[in-house]
Amino acid sequence: MNIRDMGGEFELLRRLTRRDLTDPQLVVGVGDDCAVLRYAPDRLVLVTTDMMVENDHFSVLWQTAYQIGMKLMEVNVSDIVCKGGSPRFAFLSMCLTKDTSYEFVEELYKGLYASAGKHGVLLAGGDTTHGQQLVFNIALLGEAEPDLFRPRSKAQRGDVIGVTGTLGGSTAGLELLRHGKKGYLLDHVEPKSRLVSEGRSICRFAHATIDVSDGLASEVTHIARESGLGAVIEYEKIPLADTTVESARTLGQDPADFALYGGEDFQIVFTIAKEDVPRLQKEFDDFTIVGEMVEAIEGVSLLKDGKKHPLQKGYDHFA
Amino acid sequence: MNIRDMGGEFELLRRLTRRDLTDPQLVVGVGDDCAVLRYAPDRLVLVTTDMMVENDHFSVLWQTAYQIGMKLMEVNVSDIVCKGGSPRFAFLSMCLTKDTSYEFVEELYKGLYASAGKHGVLLAGGDTTHGQQLVFNIALLGEAEPDLFRPRSKAQRGDVIGVTGTLGGSTAGLELLRHGKKGYLLDHVEPKSRLVSEGRSICRFAHATIDVSDGLASEVTHIARESGLGAVIEYEKIPLADTTVESARTLGQDPADFALYGGEDFQIVFTIAKEDVPRLQKEFDDFTIVGEMVEAIEGVSLLKDGKKHPLQKGYDHFA
Repeated sequence: MNIRDMGGEFELLRRLTRRDLTDPQLVVGVGDDCAVLRYAPDRLVLVTTDMMVENDHFSVLWQTAYQIGMKLMEVNVSDIVCKGGSPRFAFLSMCLTKDTSYEFVEELYKGLYASAGKHGVLLAGGDTTHGQQLVFNIALLGEAEPDLFRPRSKAQRGDVIGVTGTLGGSTAGLELLRHGKKGYLLDHVEPKSRLVSEGRSICRFAHATIDVSDGLASEVTHIARESGLGAVIEYEKIPLADTTVESARTLGQDPADFALYGGEDFQIVFTIAKEDVPRLQKEFDDFTIVGEMVEAIEGVSLLKDGKKHPLQKGYDHFA
Repeated sequence: MNIRDMGGEFELLRRLTRRDLTDPQLVVGVGDDCAVLRYAPDRLVLVTTDMMVENDHFSVLWQTAYQIGMKLMEVNVSDIVCKGGSPRFAFLSMCLTKDTSYEFVEELYKGLYASAGKHGVLLAGGDTTHGQQLVFNIALLGEAEPDLFRPRSKAQRGDVIGVTGTLGGSTAGLELLRHGKKGYLLDHVEPKSRLVSEGRSICRFAHATIDVSDGLASEVTHIARESGLGAVIEYEKIPLADTTVESARTLGQDPADFALYGGEDFQIVFTIAKEDVPRLQKEFDDFTIVGEMVEAIEGVSLLKDGKKHPLQKGYDHFA
């Protein structure tokens, strides 16, 4: 059976994950942005891993090795940061090709170290091998105080849904590149995680968090499903950068689609009690309220022109 | 500059690893079988990561998906076990292809779970994506008591060199397959890590340990270089299975070459004070003494027919 036909990567993992196997040290296992381990009473260890494949997650045609190295670190850091954690130790696996030059890997390391330094990460190990195409994997360990970690599953009915920064910029840049059009590319070639301090501020007040890997629609659906709730996103409130609106105009597309179904923005989506919004704003205010959590029976929908439309899914590697 | 021309993967990493960056929590960083982190005074956390690429580390032509899953877990487990640790939590990244079937991944997971169950490992997270060829990565976390971990760098002059089980079986099987010859393949298609209890016994008495990923010559060279010593391996003492000798005869090759330069046997190489050998034997006796550690100035050599030959390196992915 083809993985696409069975419903893609999420269905694949749903079928194969054995949720019957548990361990007292494993606080959170498969199915969140990172796993959570408890080695000491006062500290959680967070673990995430992200793989990047040439021509799918990056391209040497439009990204420098330095930018690829940065992205590799940022996508992993984002998984720890969105949970209120501090990323600490990275383990890098590289599948290089016979033609990969030393200079390429050196530049990639420079980008990796630049991003690592910014977020307080140390490269602590790895593995190097070769194959037909470039594949990079980082496993990243971080730490969080036990009362700061926010799972996807703890959204409350009536919570509003916040999202940091603006969305859709990465996909807008990718679409420009794919169609050979000029425009703003930086969000795509140099995506950035939010900062540790920002993630910590959000997690002090939020109930559930997730980072935007696969698009707002997909991330809100994850939170809703894991929390046993529904959600409504208001089309008009989706935060878009002027550059993204401009790129969408060039491409003749709706920029909100980039935000909803594109992904790789690495912003943080969170749910928070309405009355806590002003408290968060005092610490951190680069976010927009885009909707709210509702009863499960209402499903996950997009409110547009006064009508609710069921939300489709986000990016799937097998779609 | 080509990576092969500059000296392969070890030279690449030597140049790019920044040993100036340290952290009080990081007890051992880049350059051993696993990194060592200290989260609590009474327990070390060991971390390793290994990437397997189709047609380099495995082949769907001669291995079942179940066997590939097992191998993926065993190669990672071996890095923790050879250090006296207990593997605990695995993080699996998969690069599948558009043609990969659900059934293939299901069988791979079954093999992975079988091996994980045997060694006490829980699958705690991962990432799934796609590309042109199959690539799998596991990051594995384990634990060890602080006084049990044995770095590569603590071999003592006069230590004898021990190696568990037999060597060369994996390479013998691979060579048979490559040349289309019949013979014993199991060591290649189903390589096995030593058991946690065996690694712990060895580490109670050994000074330095390493697992056999790249061949005995390479592993002993790592220990010698990291410990500031030389080493002599006695050709006649290299432990070879009858099946490996038989395969070498079929191929018209020296089976000791498979042991020295082949790799992927996942046995444990260790150095131990001569007087401690009988004490180890009482707990665990499936090992052979193959040589000894000498002064650095003597280099790393193979004693054959009464003459010392400088040892060449083991397997390198860019050689």
